[in-house]
Amino acid sequence: MHCLVTGGAGFVGSHLVDLLVEKGHEVRVFDNLSSGRRDFLSHHGDVVSLVTGDLLDLEAVKGAMEGIEIVYHLAANPDIRLGTSVTDTDLKQGTVATYNVLEAMRSAGVPKIAFASSSVVYGEAAEMPTPEDYGPLFPISLYGASKLGSEALITSFMGTFGLQGWLFRFANIVGARGTHGVIFDFIHKLKADPTRLEVLGDGRQEKSYMEVRDCAAAMLHLVSAADEPINCYNLGSSDTCSVRRIAEIVVEESGLPDVSIEYTGGDRGWAGDVPKAMLDASRMEAAGYSPKFDSEGAVRYTTKVLFEEIG
Amino acid sequence: MHCLVTGGAGFVGSHLVDLLVEKGHEVRVFDNLSSGRRDFLSHHGDVVSLVTGDLLDLEAVKGAMEGIEIVYHLAANPDIRLGTSVTDTDLKQGTVATYNVLEAMRSAGVPKIAFASSSVVYGEAAEMPTPEDYGPLFPISLYGASKLGSEALITSFMGTFGLQGWLFRFANIVGARGTHGVIFDFIHKLKADPTRLEVLGDGRQEKSYMEVRDCAAAMLHLVSAADEPINCYNLGSSDTCSVRRIAEIVVEESGLPDVSIEYTGGDRGWAGDVPKAMLDASRMEAAGYSPKFDSEGAVRYTTKVLFEEIG
Repeated sequence: MHCLVTGGAGFVGSHLVDLLVEKGHEVRVFDNLSSGRRDFLSHHGDVVSLVTGDLLDLEAVKGAMEGIEIVYHLAANPDIRLGTSVTDTDLKQGTVATYNVLEAMRSAGVPKIAFASSSVVYGEAAEMPTPEDYGPLFPISLYGASKLGSEALITSFMGTFGLQGWLFRFANIVGARGTHGVIFDFIHKLKADPTRLEVLGDGRQEKSYMEVRDCAAAMLHLVSAADEPINCYNLGSSDTCSVRRIAEIVVEESGLPDVSIEYTGGDRGWAGDVPKAMLDASRMEAAGYSPKFDSEGAVRYTTKVLFEEIG
Repeated sequence: MHCLVTGGAGFVGSHLVDLLVEKGHEVRVFDNLSSGRRDFLSHHGDVVSLVTGDLLDLEAVKGAMEGIEIVYHLAANPDIRLGTSVTDTDLKQGTVATYNVLEAMRSAGVPKIAFASSSVVYGEAAEMPTPEDYGPLFPISLYGASKLGSEALITSFMGTFGLQGWLFRFANIVGARGTHGVIFDFIHKLKADPTRLEVLGDGRQEKSYMEVRDCAAAMLHLVSAADEPINCYNLGSSDTCSVRRIAEIVVEESGLPDVSIEYTGGDRGWAGDVPKAMLDASRMEAAGYSPKFDSEGAVRYTTKVLFEEIG
């Protein structure tokens, strides 16, 4: 199939591109290279075409749709914390960008969209593990608001214009080429000061983690296996790993002899951080995809890989 | 309290202003007069101040926040059908406008927002009557997407900046000063041709209706009675009235002797129309507000009033 991957030069996007190419799909990437990197795609040579552009430029997005059969829409601001200081980035790079993708698809007659949503749409859920039909949806970060706003745009284009959509609510995705997130931050902190590791919050925050190639494989599997007008799936494992445990794993894997782990205290890393998120991944598993790694396994593997990458 | 009412010159907004003034609140209205009308407020003289401006102008919105203690955010595109032909109106007048209201509140330190959301956030709900914690939320109109996107922005500003919010998911609100909607449309159709009434769809669509003064009174009651960080309530009655029944009532009240009611067929009025919506209003009732009219009563009363207004 002819695929457009927005954010395809980014962390999750570039792994998805790898898998799409491996499976024989024709891939075009649309990326503004704000957090994506050319060298995440360079191993594909001319096989993957890269359109460097911004999703806020509707005409540019329309121009990228020719011949496309499905859009994997992964582009977004990747830093959830940013919303605490800059309040319009998620609105623009999330909600408005998704509108432009949908409007360009409508103009060009592209029928299918697979969207990288997030488990943060559940906010501080009262039910754990949290299933896809959980309500109410009260996200507490501006990033989460942009994901829910984008999902709603997709379902509305489904209901109004007949588009077909896959909504993938990601756990914390970790792995090679990671450019942000807790493991990435911890490694950089240890690099700056090998004697101590500062942890935001009390370390008791715990979330579901998924290794990035598991995430890409699950997306591809479900786009083939699920064929409703709207297909909504949690992507993750039904277990969790705590921030305290992640800190311990990073220190273990660092090989550093005497690291003092220090907690700033409080029940969350920052305002808008969800202290505990445990996804119900049974719908994904019932549809035929089981991740290779559980949450702790994904964290351990990622720690090893990122130490190699970051050095 | 010092209140800012966005869309306060509009249909629901002007009734809310009436009630706020009656209860002794100080009221400022922010309205672009696109569907609102000066004469809906003129009976208040100087008691109500009107700021004529657009919510897409962030500086103008910031300028209107001085001294305000609570914002009643009612401004929006009122025509759900518009999204089938113009796809960016709801995004701008709904989601982006709500962001500007929240950002202006944050800048000015205004702590409370009551928002006119809609039962269309539920999409084609599998559970009826539909309670506030229903999921998944898959709105099928672009209007519905903007309401859910706006709710998510409000909960995210709650979680990130400590704002307090009331999310009111309106049934179909009907009553005096109505400027759109099915009863309004039917009366105008009969005025154009007193021999026949064309009904979009098969007439079996049925929804919860609420009389507009009931709606305004419920909002004021719940802002006093409910004090959680986020307070989400369906506003409506737990019964429904069908479009077929509305057509019959309008014809009865018209006094016209021989009107042929003709159905265009199909299960919905237009793409993105929800064929059946029945709200669970028990949370509102448990919090101490019971509407005067049930759905059919609200329709009958509104028909009489609109015949008087439209002539």
